[in-house]
Amino acid sequence: MARRTESSGTTRLESDAFGDIAVAADRYWGAQTQRAIGNFAIGTDTMPAALIHALGIVKHCAARCNGELGELEPAIAQALAEAAAEVMQGRWDAHFPLSVWQTGSGTQTHMNANEVIANRASEMLGGTLGSKQPVHPNDHCNRGQSSNDSFPSAMHIATARETHGRLLPALEGLQTTLENKSREWWRINKIGRTHLQDATPLTLGQEFSGFARQIHLGRQRVASALTDIHALSQGGTAVGTGLNCAPGFADLFARRVAEVTGLPFTSADNKFESSAAHDALVAFSGALNTLAVSLNKISNDVRLLASGPRCGLGELSLPENEPGSSIMPGKVNPTQCEALCMVCAQVIGNHAAVTAGGMQGHLQLNTFKPLIIFNVLQSIALLSDAISSFNRHCLSGTEPNRERLQQHLEQSLMLVTALAPHLGYDRAAAIAKKAHAEGLSLREAALADGTLDADTFDELIDVDTMTGAH
Amino acid sequence: MARRTESSGTTRLESDAFGDIAVAADRYWGAQTQRAIGNFAIGTDTMPAALIHALGIVKHCAARCNGELGELEPAIAQALAEAAAEVMQGRWDAHFPLSVWQTGSGTQTHMNANEVIANRASEMLGGTLGSKQPVHPNDHCNRGQSSNDSFPSAMHIATARETHGRLLPALEGLQTTLENKSREWWRINKIGRTHLQDATPLTLGQEFSGFARQIHLGRQRVASALTDIHALSQGGTAVGTGLNCAPGFADLFARRVAEVTGLPFTSADNKFESSAAHDALVAFSGALNTLAVSLNKISNDVRLLASGPRCGLGELSLPENEPGSSIMPGKVNPTQCEALCMVCAQVIGNHAAVTAGGMQGHLQLNTFKPLIIFNVLQSIALLSDAISSFNRHCLSGTEPNRERLQQHLEQSLMLVTALAPHLGYDRAAAIAKKAHAEGLSLREAALADGTLDADTFDELIDVDTMTGAH
Amino acid sequence: MARRTESSGTTRLESDAFGDIAVAADRYWGAQTQRAIGNFAIGTDTMPAALIHALGIVKHCAARCNGELGELEPAIAQALAEAAAEVMQGRWDAHFPLSVWQTGSGTQTHMNANEVIANRASEMLGGTLGSKQPVHPNDHCNRGQSSNDSFPSAMHIATARETHGRLLPALEGLQTTLENKSREWWRINKIGRTHLQDATPLTLGQEFSGFARQIHLGRQRVASALTDIHALSQGGTAVGTGLNCAPGFADLFARRVAEVTGLPFTSADNKFESSAAHDALVAFSGALNTLAVSLNKISNDVRLLASGPRCGLGELSLPENEPGSSIMPGKVNPTQCEALCMVCAQVIGNHAAVTAGGMQGHLQLNTFKPLIIFNVLQSIALLSDAISSFNRHCLSGTEPNRERLQQHLEQSLMLVTALAPHLGYDRAAAIAKKAHAEGLSLREAALADGTLDADTFDELIDVDTMTGAH
Amino acid sequence: MARRTESSGTTRLESDAFGDIAVAADRYWGAQTQRAIGNFAIGTDTMPAALIHALGIVKHCAARCNGELGELEPAIAQALAEAAAEVMQGRWDAHFPLSVWQTGSGTQTHMNANEVIANRASEMLGGTLGSKQPVHPNDHCNRGQSSNDSFPSAMHIATARETHGRLLPALEGLQTTLENKSREWWRINKIGRTHLQDATPLTLGQEFSGFARQIHLGRQRVASALTDIHALSQGGTAVGTGLNCAPGFADLFARRVAEVTGLPFTSADNKFESSAAHDALVAFSGALNTLAVSLNKISNDVRLLASGPRCGLGELSLPENEPGSSIMPGKVNPTQCEALCMVCAQVIGNHAAVTAGGMQGHLQLNTFKPLIIFNVLQSIALLSDAISSFNRHCLSGTEPNRERLQQHLEQSLMLVTALAPHLGYDRAAAIAKKAHAEGLSLREAALADGTLDADTFDELIDVDTMTGAH
Repeated sequence: MARRTESSGTTRLESDAFGDIAVAADRYWGAQTQRAIGNFAIGTDTMPAALIHALGIVKHCAARCNGELGELEPAIAQALAEAAAEVMQGRWDAHFPLSVWQTGSGTQTHMNANEVIANRASEMLGGTLGSKQPVHPNDHCNRGQSSNDSFPSAMHIATARETHGRLLPALEGLQTTLENKSREWWRINKIGRTHLQDATPLTLGQEFSGFARQIHLGRQRVASALTDIHALSQGGTAVGTGLNCAPGFADLFARRVAEVTGLPFTSADNKFESSAAHDALVAFSGALNTLAVSLNKISNDVRLLASGPRCGLGELSLPENEPGSSIMPGKVNPTQCEALCMVCAQVIGNHAAVTAGGMQGHLQLNTFKPLIIFNVLQSIALLSDAISSFNRHCLSGTEPNRERLQQHLEQSLMLVTALAPHLGYDRAAAIAKKAHAEGLSLREAALADGTLDADTFDELIDVDTMTGAH
Repeated sequence: MARRTESSGTTRLESDAFGDIAVAADRYWGAQTQRAIGNFAIGTDTMPAALIHALGIVKHCAARCNGELGELEPAIAQALAEAAAEVMQGRWDAHFPLSVWQTGSGTQTHMNANEVIANRASEMLGGTLGSKQPVHPNDHCNRGQSSNDSFPSAMHIATARETHGRLLPALEGLQTTLENKSREWWRINKIGRTHLQDATPLTLGQEFSGFARQIHLGRQRVASALTDIHALSQGGTAVGTGLNCAPGFADLFARRVAEVTGLPFTSADNKFESSAAHDALVAFSGALNTLAVSLNKISNDVRLLASGPRCGLGELSLPENEPGSSIMPGKVNPTQCEALCMVCAQVIGNHAAVTAGGMQGHLQLNTFKPLIIFNVLQSIALLSDAISSFNRHCLSGTEPNRERLQQHLEQSLMLVTALAPHLGYDRAAAIAKKAHAEGLSLREAALADGTLDADTFDELIDVDTMTGAH
Repeated sequence: MARRTESSGTTRLESDAFGDIAVAADRYWGAQTQRAIGNFAIGTDTMPAALIHALGIVKHCAARCNGELGELEPAIAQALAEAAAEVMQGRWDAHFPLSVWQTGSGTQTHMNANEVIANRASEMLGGTLGSKQPVHPNDHCNRGQSSNDSFPSAMHIATARETHGRLLPALEGLQTTLENKSREWWRINKIGRTHLQDATPLTLGQEFSGFARQIHLGRQRVASALTDIHALSQGGTAVGTGLNCAPGFADLFARRVAEVTGLPFTSADNKFESSAAHDALVAFSGALNTLAVSLNKISNDVRLLASGPRCGLGELSLPENEPGSSIMPGKVNPTQCEALCMVCAQVIGNHAAVTAGGMQGHLQLNTFKPLIIFNVLQSIALLSDAISSFNRHCLSGTEPNRERLQQHLEQSLMLVTALAPHLGYDRAAAIAKKAHAEGLSLREAALADGTLDADTFDELIDVDTMTGAH
Repeated sequence: MARRTESSGTTRLESDAFGDIAVAADRYWGAQTQRAIGNFAIGTDTMPAALIHALGIVKHCAARCNGELGELEPAIAQALAEAAAEVMQGRWDAHFPLSVWQTGSGTQTHMNANEVIANRASEMLGGTLGSKQPVHPNDHCNRGQSSNDSFPSAMHIATARETHGRLLPALEGLQTTLENKSREWWRINKIGRTHLQDATPLTLGQEFSGFARQIHLGRQRVASALTDIHALSQGGTAVGTGLNCAPGFADLFARRVAEVTGLPFTSADNKFESSAAHDALVAFSGALNTLAVSLNKISNDVRLLASGPRCGLGELSLPENEPGSSIMPGKVNPTQCEALCMVCAQVIGNHAAVTAGGMQGHLQLNTFKPLIIFNVLQSIALLSDAISSFNRHCLSGTEPNRERLQQHLEQSLMLVTALAPHLGYDRAAAIAKKAHAEGLSLREAALADGTLDADTFDELIDVDTMTGAH
């Protein structure tokens, strides 16, 4: 586990309702975090940094709101806001050692945040770590809050920030490259393929315009799925009623988060729904799943068009980035396509995990929160990185093999389709079948049929006209 | 297979590029359909009726457009439009015998439609079945069309019609019942439960408001996912270039479909994307997957709250519709919840199938079209029916057990949460632990603690205030 | 719904604990079935025939055991056994009208069986339909049984019979064809492809031996997964204790089922597990999922090798079964591959549905039984049919294009691998890179390098030696 | 990324077919690893340590075999074997910095191993890092090997070792606890529940015997799925033909791996299958998926039985490990159940990812290898840890609440089932319905019915007899 850093041997005592427990002297966490280290030694994944930073935002804004609403003394509110800002900025990442695989409400990590921030705020105000004086993790840092509204708020904040900050820019970059290639290659005729069989022609630019359109629509779907993510559950506290939370807190909090992040967060209309279910994240994961489906198609098509170099389709040349084989000298492989396809498979699997978590909550609380956010954030990060890597290391340097494209075009029989309106489908089919059976070119077979003269054939079989791209 | 009806022994000859083949004399299909019956004897599922009717709409509108654009003689266009309208209305369902599990473009079912409609139109014009005179299945009925734009268009039309006609109304009905229950039960206090453990109180109406909100948002997501479904690929023909299709056909076609269906269909912006990929349907299936997640939660909660009658939570009473057990006399079970949960599991599985199909297409054509539409239409139909059944046979007749609700509320210790702002978290925790350990009521334990007097306790522990619903 | 046949208008009264209800006079079902028709109008899928027939086996064997153990009078036991045998043989399929989407225990269909068989047995003994005299559906037909052991027993029996009767033979047929092709083509050299890029050579027979091995192992996995399916829950009754069931019934029942089916059924060791969970079917579905993965690979490879005919790999020719396109005359497509791939996607989706159902049961009963068996039986049926169809209509008639295979082999550069042990990897890589960059043959580039003479090159680059197949 | 440790600024030059590249002076990797760091900056997951150690085993055994077969000079073979043994033991983990998301063959990590081991072996023999003298990463360390047989071999070795070393022991521990609880609680009567509704009684020990049986069968399934994992692809080299690999190498290698690991590894029968497909791992993942389904059921049942403490079923008491809520003082939650359930959802998602990877390979090589092994190893690790944590921190300390169990038993009406054989189903049902409607005990309702006298009732309604456990 990356962040489970070792510390020196000295310890201090921290306490909670279960009693005292020793904590490494140089760690800012408290008793509940320490217990959770022992109770949840499961796997190597710690809670994602993006989620920790989002908890920093939650605690920062909550402290400010509680100060403004008179729920906390100004000095305490101020110290909490500063300490939480440090968490938000990543300064205390090494003090969040807990596994993803803990309680389903994320309470341990939530208390981890309360403990670190309260200790740090106490320290700022001259207090001693572990004393809970002058700042108490529950009574002050967690004032008017519950894991059941704070953790979901952090889930939404992290998702929105990562999407705006990483995924949407990566998608824009990919779309731009695809659109540029489409424009650049708009007039390069090529054979189409349906069912992996030769079909009527199109241009390479047209083919890539379809890819660009997939990404354009995928971006729209992700952006649309963000709408429900911008709704925050904060203010519902334990079960959605807002017990112990000050009047006006929920809306004020959402405004503060919107200011801090620059994103259009609002307070959720129904706080019972927003801690009992995570449909918004299941739906968001569905948008990522669709994106994975699109990217898998694009990536597969690119490596298929680049197959060869001599015994495949060979219509595209991909950049050569590294030796491809430990045994076959000189081999170069579509490695970026493969990395991207693997990421797509992972995102599809993550979506199944998110679905399994989303469908199973009980009554007032969905208890698959860490699972859900772990998978959503991993999907966002992997897609963002893999898209950028594919774009930069593969797609940008991809070039058409014009000779091969032309050669395929000339060999194909499916240009016969342009004869069908003139000869009828049945007669055109007979010409194509004859050419195929006898190894003739389409022109040879058509002229042998006797119906068309050469001039008419040449007029009808005009690829530029057939693609409509010129 | 439901629609593979047997016919009398007499046959006629039909033909295609592969030669002659005998077809039952009273069937309107042609040679390609007949071949496909033999070539695809796989499973018992025939292509869904909703898709067949949508193909009728496609062919009806295409015939009218080709007539308007001068691509077909008026008499032929008129006959085709009429014959296709009959298919749209379900008159010829028994003439669509083909399995879902055929070619991945749906070409066999598309040709089935061309053959039935062309034969029927020929018959209307005095021709003989099988003669392809005066109406030819390819040259006339399929004029300017391809399976690769017609079948996807039918997929989108069927999805939109079924959603508008069945799913959205079912969801509205469910939402209305949930909102009514929520209003009716708004002031019935009850204990909340998080982690399946007693928590702070809320009202039964608040609990159901969360369910209502889930359905409200689910409807929005489905409606939003319809946007891309309203885009039609028609006019792209074989690979998206529109080869053999008349100028202006695509837009005119979309307008005609919009008129016939009353739904806002448009022509897809990029025809390369719309036959090569089915991201729009994958995304739509993702919206259904989210709905299944929501419904599974609601249905599970309802049966959990109704568990018992004597040894469970017992807070709700469900209608008793039928004997529940073949061996246990007098047993009644939450059968509607179970049917709905099973449907949710199926929809989640169907989404995995749609994802597997969507991710795998090659180049100019996704060849998982029948799989995708079969699963999407099944998910829509099952959700629609199961939601309506659950609403009608279960939810509408569900009643609260007020005595039990009150009894639980009085027993719980988690009302202690309201003391925390006054006593601090740590002291409040000690009171709750003492009550739990010694079997005391919260009031007894709090007074024994000596800090609070009875009046203060009673003032602080006011459930009406705690839920905020009064 | 296929089996919801319409009947004449006359009715009789049937009754259950909920009172009287009218049933069509010519239907053998009773009150509970009739109620369920109204209560579960969900979707169009009725309970699979294979499951109904398996329920016939359950009831047949139970009646015989109860007779042998003195639990039922001989005449009643005999009549029940005969009536149940008729259900087993499919005679009364039209009397099982219920939807898959009913109670999660399958109780409605189980009672449907009890009602039909009891009515039919009463009729055989001179009684009147609906009188429950002399044979009562619960007291006699269901004697010592519960839905909770009978329905799972039928699930296992149906799964085993369908697997033995359909899936394993289909797999054997496919394996045989693959092995025959492998032997026949054992010495046809061809270029290998890794990462879709040209690699070292192998033979076409070797390539197909890998497919054959996949199927061989898949059969083993299915057969192995049957072991737990052969364990029957019968005798556990309602919750696994066997309440109301005669001593010795469970083992005797399993022996009788084994005799009737010819399959090695046994009584489950732990009856609590076998109605509370369906892990055995989840695991079995996992074996089908693996099979789908294998078949998707094989089917994809076949259509990729057959891509073209002129602009693809073109190394295989598939049989031409039907016209492939409604617009492109003369086009022929790998339709059997596509049908099989779609079936694979469905099986993968069904596995997700089975997993969702298996993970969710509560306490003494998994209530996703109809969902689970519906999906497992559909997967078995689709795989069986699609494998047989693919084998018969595609694979058996597939032929190599020897000219193309040889041409690819000669063009490739990856034979350079055979030089690496002699020249070292780095130098061999340089030769390959030079050939690629300058458009040379490998031989030309190697000789230009100056290290090897022509004789040594020809000795090292011997494809027959490289494949090791000769 | 945990292992991407920073190093001092000094560098040395390494080279490959693409030229020179600077590598940190204190790192043992070479040019290809260095390129891959730049080319695959995707996500934060590095290749799992278990896989790196397994590559150490592969290279150790390969070096020894090549030495024994005279393919390498003894000194080089010896140095390679020693260096590889160090990798196997984890000494060089920090020198494997590469992302999971790289080429689909794992070639970059495979070359990483070749480079580290060759550099280390050169160093042992007095050579300089980066000189490839006297030990070359390809010509010596990779002698007779390819990524396409070495990486799959390492995948299988890692899977088998992790399963034997972690998962099977964890399962054994869980099964033991469940069996102990079952024995200990064998005679504690309790009410059964089907459909979450009160049913006939069983004992708590019987209930837990069902859980124990699930785990027993799950272990068998995992062990059975290991059979195909023990088959190694090593010796097939690039495409399965074994080109450049010494005769006898494959079998000797498998024997050596078996010796080193103590596990029954063999050489795969068909090397074409074993690099082109990963069905064995898909099937293995299916066994883990089934285990997840079982554990989800068990974990859910435990938290449901422990729900409360006052407003739930309350039949079990779980150990109290930590405060459960940041807002609700004194709350304790089933946190270990939740962690385990989240892990189950992840394993189910991972299985979907593995399935997506397994179904998509092309021709001679499946290129989803890193994805597949990453998910399989994560599933094994998470299940192992979560099972052990649940066993130790929850199940071992779980205790029955005898008072509550008895109270439920006395309240229930479903003991009426024992009357059915005597009164008939219909009459028994009437008694139960009367009791339910009028709030009577079963005894009261039965006696009020007038058929049974009190003595007969008490004789028939004997819970000890009904459970059959005494």
